[in-house]
Amino acid sequence: MKQELLYEGKAKQIYSTANPDEVIIYYKDDATAGNGAKKAQFEDKGRLNSEISRMIYMDLMKNGIKTHLIKSVNEREQLCHKVDIILLEAIVRNIAAGSLVKRIGLEEGKKLNPPILEFCYKADAFNDPLINDDHAVALGLATHEELDFIRGEMRKINDYLKALWLEVGIDLVDFKIEFGRMKDGTIVLADEISPDTCRLWDSKTGEKLDKDRFRQDMGGVIEAYEEIHRRLKDRT
Amino acid sequence: MKQELLYEGKAKQIYSTANPDEVIIYYKDDATAGNGAKKAQFEDKGRLNSEISRMIYMDLMKNGIKTHLIKSVNEREQLCHKVDIILLEAIVRNIAAGSLVKRIGLEEGKKLNPPILEFCYKADAFNDPLINDDHAVALGLATHEELDFIRGEMRKINDYLKALWLEVGIDLVDFKIEFGRMKDGTIVLADEISPDTCRLWDSKTGEKLDKDRFRQDMGGVIEAYEEIHRRLKDRT
Repeated sequence: MKQELLYEGKAKQIYSTANPDEVIIYYKDDATAGNGAKKAQFEDKGRLNSEISRMIYMDLMKNGIKTHLIKSVNEREQLCHKVDIILLEAIVRNIAAGSLVKRIGLEEGKKLNPPILEFCYKADAFNDPLINDDHAVALGLATHEELDFIRGEMRKINDYLKALWLEVGIDLVDFKIEFGRMKDGTIVLADEISPDTCRLWDSKTGEKLDKDRFRQDMGGVIEAYEEIHRRLKDRT
Repeated sequence: MKQELLYEGKAKQIYSTANPDEVIIYYKDDATAGNGAKKAQFEDKGRLNSEISRMIYMDLMKNGIKTHLIKSVNEREQLCHKVDIILLEAIVRNIAAGSLVKRIGLEEGKKLNPPILEFCYKADAFNDPLINDDHAVALGLATHEELDFIRGEMRKINDYLKALWLEVGIDLVDFKIEFGRMKDGTIVLADEISPDTCRLWDSKTGEKLDKDRFRQDMGGVIEAYEEIHRRLKDRT
């Protein structure tokens, strides 16, 4: 099924298929943090993230969210519509953590209601800086109308995800998603949703079950991903 | 007229007056850059900036923009309505320069049409970081409605300022303004508009006639401020 390697990112590879409008996304075991400054491999992470992301995407699609996902090929690979990725990290924050605390001094753990929405410019050379709508338009990333549409999707996705995670005993602190344009211009959710891209705190104990364990050298990285995978799997 | 020193900033002092709703703003000769990392004094800068700002404010007020200015007391001091400053640097950019080039890689000199509007959080401890509307609301700085109003004022002020500077042979590259709340909640333009807070390039020669001469150790700082003052004065 996989043909040529089209693109290799920090955690995934994208391959062409016989159909020019479809790609296969392969989930690697690599983990990076700090814009690639810190690197490691965790055996099985790729498989776990692919499965976690697939389960979440299936749920979002049931709720009417349009995504790039067609189906899983195997536990590490997904067949997806080929999209042009919009060079924006779309971030939704329900609880203050991470850069929100470091950059502007909000108190860690502060509940954000309504959530804070952010766009960062996906540009390694500039460390994915926070931008506003005017910057995104000047950079030619999207129009004001597209940004409003994306914000609407971010809010809907956040509502579904918060409910989904709560069902399995997890507080959704924040998450990063990406969007892509299909051949006909339709904007759909792309990339992954996993402990690599979400901050997930156990609702009862507050334990971190996400990539912060790697960022902060807390250990138990793969065990946390396994726990997330198990809870989502038990739910279905 | 001046009574108690209420506040001392990097370039100005604010004094109480006999009227609790009015203050006197004194323009110092101090110049700082890089959030105070670089400091110097330029004899006469305070007087020039006070006069430049007053002339510009008079023009904006003629055009219906509400500001804190009541009148000049002398060449270095202005009598103003006392306002609660909103902790936002409101930035308008007509041509890419400065942080826009460094942070997100827009090409220096690129014309921005429509202009880019930005808000930075006035917080020395965090180096005045760029924020978006959601951040401003979460920080309690302003409501979404107030931010929309401020953006409207920024656009109007930019239109008047561009025309005013063009009349005296200057391209308005970008500028920073601040707003404050009057006792009754009305939001008005506050702070100063001067070569300290604008990037001003000579329309013909491209010569920089603003604080970048100090930031970039180009020399001729006070001569540039004198030139700006002279052109504005000759206009009236």
